[in-house]
Amino acid sequence: MTNNKLSVVLIGAGNVATQTALALQAKEVSILQVFSRTEQSARLLAEQCNCSFTTDTNTISREADIYLYSVKDDALPLLIRQINITNGIHIHTAGSVPMNVFEGFRQNFGVFYPMQTFSKSKQVKFDNIPIFVEANSAQNLEVLTRLGKELSNAVTPCDSKQRQALHLAAVFCCNFTNHLYKVTDDLLKQSNLPFEVMLPLIHETVDKLHYLTPDEAQTGPAVRYDTSVIDKHLDALKNMPNEKELYILFTKRIHDAAKK
Amino acid sequence: MTNNKLSVVLIGAGNVATQTALALQAKEVSILQVFSRTEQSARLLAEQCNCSFTTDTNTISREADIYLYSVKDDALPLLIRQINITNGIHIHTAGSVPMNVFEGFRQNFGVFYPMQTFSKSKQVKFDNIPIFVEANSAQNLEVLTRLGKELSNAVTPCDSKQRQALHLAAVFCCNFTNHLYKVTDDLLKQSNLPFEVMLPLIHETVDKLHYLTPDEAQTGPAVRYDTSVIDKHLDALKNMPNEKELYILFTKRIHDAAKK
Repeated sequence: MTNNKLSVVLIGAGNVATQTALALQAKEVSILQVFSRTEQSARLLAEQCNCSFTTDTNTISREADIYLYSVKDDALPLLIRQINITNGIHIHTAGSVPMNVFEGFRQNFGVFYPMQTFSKSKQVKFDNIPIFVEANSAQNLEVLTRLGKELSNAVTPCDSKQRQALHLAAVFCCNFTNHLYKVTDDLLKQSNLPFEVMLPLIHETVDKLHYLTPDEAQTGPAVRYDTSVIDKHLDALKNMPNEKELYILFTKRIHDAAKK
Repeated sequence: MTNNKLSVVLIGAGNVATQTALALQAKEVSILQVFSRTEQSARLLAEQCNCSFTTDTNTISREADIYLYSVKDDALPLLIRQINITNGIHIHTAGSVPMNVFEGFRQNFGVFYPMQTFSKSKQVKFDNIPIFVEANSAQNLEVLTRLGKELSNAVTPCDSKQRQALHLAAVFCCNFTNHLYKVTDDLLKQSNLPFEVMLPLIHETVDKLHYLTPDEAQTGPAVRYDTSVIDKHLDALKNMPNEKELYILFTKRIHDAAKK
């Protein structure tokens, strides 16, 4: 930990690794090296971070304070076995992988979970992103908290079980809502309407959540059970079985919730 | 249209009527009277607008420039027959009701559709809300455009067919996403986590739509088809059949869309 500046090797060069690296690099953190099995991804991210890269687990730098693993969950256990480095703190960024994936293979390890949706091409402001940290010792937790605070004002310790619950909930309110935006886009395209026309409504739907619970905020024909509107919508969807199935399911669920 | 200030009678006192009336009242528009069959709702909104109210269709003021109908779609045809006023422009705010519901009953009529989610207790800033207007004459369209511009910078003419497409799309990206927020809230409660922890993620999910199409913005285990994560999530939902059904359906749909 020379110069008191944390140094990091990135294991993986996907969306999470890219956005985290770009944000860390802008702070008091040195990115030493990028490892990825895919040379093109490794090279691209290394160029952005102005550091070296490798595609060979045997040539990963042994000088880092922190080894940050951002790879597909399935790939993590084998990679941990192949990367035979015992110094430094080894951490992963996966919502649903318990910390003990490192147990028996490393001395110092933990988890660094930034709860956010990362796309390579959309840079993310980390300031308010909740980062959940977990470590196998109080001392390591302190280092991870320090790393987190370089990026965000919202760094919170969290055990593996709670993190998994967060990840599952995040899939519903991020990945699944985004799919509904895709369906919205498809419907609008059919009528030659631009998706942008929906953005004020979409923003207000979210802004309301600062004032009302989702239960209180629910509006629309399903909650009123306005069959005149519902029947018109089902008719409009009569040749779109996928969208119709979603419409029927959500209308029933919203109505059932409103009756309670 | 004395003093060049538009005067409005509100027919209905629900969420849309309330939020529209409060916004109009703050502008160069006079609210003359509130009509609602429910005395309590009529009185409450009339107090907020500092005007009179009635529950009797026979005592509705005949002096208004505009009669704004914000009632359940089912109730509209009968109400139009019962309110026997022929002067003024008669307009409704319903996304899925064609303008011709007024045909044969009024001389001047149209539609004024603010595409937004309205709750009584959350005041809405109208500035950027798209308002779609339609009228049975160019002159009436001009008056409705003027009324709309009192509230919003985004007033657009739109025929009944396009408005119905907008309304259907809005149900997906507003009402149905809000239900996913409710499911998220339920899941978090089970792990004693506050819903607020998800707000940064939810905001970023929406902010991305300014830079990426929903297709490009899609992330998560379903798009990667990360079966290790998906199996853990399905296991976590094993005693929650409703949430599990949504999870399976969305995972399949997202994966199918990603393969295209």
